[in-house]
Amino acid sequence: LVSEDDVLNLHRILHGKIQIQNRIPLDEINNEEEKESVLGETLSLIYTPGVAHVAEKIQKNKGLVYDYTSKWNTIAIICDGTRVLGLGNIGPEAALPVMEGKSVIFRTMGGVNAIPLCIDSQDQDEIIKFVKILQPAFGAINIEDIESPKVLYIVDKLQKELSIPIFHDDQHGTSIVTLAALFNALKLINKNEIDDLRIVIAGAGSAGYGIFKILQKANCSNIIVVDKKGAIYRGRREGGIDNPYKKEIAANTNPEMKAGNLGDVIRESDVFIGVSGKAGLLTKQMVQSMKKESIVFALSNPDPEILPSDAAKAGAKITATGRSDYPNQINNALVFPYILRALLDTRSKKVDYTMLVSIANAIASLVDQSQLKEDYILPKLNDLRLTSRITKTLQSN
Amino acid sequence: LVSEDDVLNLHRILHGKIQIQNRIPLDEINNEEEKESVLGETLSLIYTPGVAHVAEKIQKNKGLVYDYTSKWNTIAIICDGTRVLGLGNIGPEAALPVMEGKSVIFRTMGGVNAIPLCIDSQDQDEIIKFVKILQPAFGAINIEDIESPKVLYIVDKLQKELSIPIFHDDQHGTSIVTLAALFNALKLINKNEIDDLRIVIAGAGSAGYGIFKILQKANCSNIIVVDKKGAIYRGRREGGIDNPYKKEIAANTNPEMKAGNLGDVIRESDVFIGVSGKAGLLTKQMVQSMKKESIVFALSNPDPEILPSDAAKAGAKITATGRSDYPNQINNALVFPYILRALLDTRSKKVDYTMLVSIANAIASLVDQSQLKEDYILPKLNDLRLTSRITKTLQSN
Repeated sequence: LVSEDDVLNLHRILHGKIQIQNRIPLDEINNEEEKESVLGETLSLIYTPGVAHVAEKIQKNKGLVYDYTSKWNTIAIICDGTRVLGLGNIGPEAALPVMEGKSVIFRTMGGVNAIPLCIDSQDQDEIIKFVKILQPAFGAINIEDIESPKVLYIVDKLQKELSIPIFHDDQHGTSIVTLAALFNALKLINKNEIDDLRIVIAGAGSAGYGIFKILQKANCSNIIVVDKKGAIYRGRREGGIDNPYKKEIAANTNPEMKAGNLGDVIRESDVFIGVSGKAGLLTKQMVQSMKKESIVFALSNPDPEILPSDAAKAGAKITATGRSDYPNQINNALVFPYILRALLDTRSKKVDYTMLVSIANAIASLVDQSQLKEDYILPKLNDLRLTSRITKTLQSN
Repeated sequence: LVSEDDVLNLHRILHGKIQIQNRIPLDEINNEEEKESVLGETLSLIYTPGVAHVAEKIQKNKGLVYDYTSKWNTIAIICDGTRVLGLGNIGPEAALPVMEGKSVIFRTMGGVNAIPLCIDSQDQDEIIKFVKILQPAFGAINIEDIESPKVLYIVDKLQKELSIPIFHDDQHGTSIVTLAALFNALKLINKNEIDDLRIVIAGAGSAGYGIFKILQKANCSNIIVVDKKGAIYRGRREGGIDNPYKKEIAANTNPEMKAGNLGDVIRESDVFIGVSGKAGLLTKQMVQSMKKESIVFALSNPDPEILPSDAAKAGAKITATGRSDYPNQINNALVFPYILRALLDTRSKKVDYTMLVSIANAIASLVDQSQLKEDYILPKLNDLRLTSRITKTLQSN
């Protein structure tokens, strides 16, 4: 696909993928004489002494910082480097080119200024403190590629304590796109009732937790989440329930309290959603044991839990992956630039799962009934309606 | 000069003075079809999956973050809002338009990406911790408009603990420009020996401390610093010596241990440097009591310690202020964009006063002997030689 040499050379030549640009045409004056006089006049308006008037206005009415500065359109991407792509704990410096790439997408697709802050602390309380102190210059926070369950604690705590919204792409973004895909997949197998589907989620990290939360909010009552130790259920002994988020999962899923591994609980289920990070976790036999016309979303990257072709052969009616080289890519880029755009434009204070279900619905509705096919259940990445639909959803929420 | 209405309207229309810009021409493609294909290809190079190659390279060799990301050209402007312009403790939100203005100057004059981080903590240890955690994505730190002596402690501590350079404009920037101006002023009164000048500094905050430090490094042996309680000297009782920076001043200045107020110690001195924040502090009588052909730098803004015309009438040979509407403006903008440019380009690890003296010399030398006049002792703000001269100075340091 992409060669390492091409990638490294491009990055060496670009020498950084983003930069600061003035919103006044200061750098376009070529004549030096003119530059001097324009510069002097401009600086007296945008810097001292003129800017003191702006500072005083904001001091009297803090809310005006949204009118007179870039706060309204600027977010921070916070990453501690502990869980970057499929590479694991590679540290903040190594995470920086990834976050710069994300910033390019924010700018290109959402028109958002996203400042990558790859930070040199992996301690949850230090990260929380850091983000709280960071607030004044930013309109929203995007949390990215921090290991779970630490990141769930951080996001929970910051949701309560920040005065600006916090979006956790691995949790919120993935859950929205997955639910949107599921909504459309169900239309194709004529199951309009999501409530009584039996859904198995493999993986209980940020993505697994987010998908459980959004499905619960969408009224799914028969979810089973499987982690490394097997199905999670209330009071599980083997492996225990080692964090509050798994406790929440245990208390709200698996109504029949089924124990066992994935092979045991997948039988007779309608939907498989894999966010386990384990290539090949789902075997053909397991898919065969599912209900007829099953839905298999094998989302782990770069190697899915099962190849779509294998899943189809074993009886799956609709498949999706996280990859662009198979049909039905479940890609967060379908959401994150637009939801941040919308959160900023609506001055939302908080992200909640009711909001996320509505957005999933809005995204699903962008695929017209006439276009909907087994290999086309999600709109394209550059669908220009995404921004306005997601913003409208937030406005009416 | 500038009307409040003009300033507020301009800021409302600009709606932020800076923004993020991609360094790849992604946003210039107008054809949607083309955009989709270019976007897909580009994203696979600058984001997943390609960017993983870059992340892995940096993980193996952290230094490569300077080659593959924007770190090499990105600084943070850190401000807690406690001492903004002449407005005092106005808070981080009200400080933001000022720091955005500063960022515009960094971009326009120095080509530096400066991210304004106006932070919601006024606690020195929290600020230190914040900046330490912030390091990975930044090539240097610029500390701005934080109250003294807290800021001196923060800068001291960070100088020791950061792996990237930290520049404190109020301290370092002011001291450089002041010394450069003094070097050239001395040429005009034919005093080439700076060592035995008697220099009185009014003000012992960031600027006063910085000027004391640079003069000391430039071999001045007869400095007296005056604070609100009068002349500082070793063992002063009245008012005490209430912080370690004043202790350092007391131990290294005022060899004759002169006590008293400004009027007492200004007599028979050669140079007055005012960074007191007190309009009218220096009277004509005081200037008259100085040596003949005295030098009076009344740098407090917006209202200087004495008007240049009054100082001249009272016998001062050379005057300077912080204002653009009098001759000889001592303006940090002559230094800060270029020194950050130079610190980044030379990958300097630290700012020290030996370096700052050399830079003051370099700046002074930009005014040719033939141009040098009583009302022209500093180069112009847009002198295009500033960058290369300051960079060269750092390279040979």
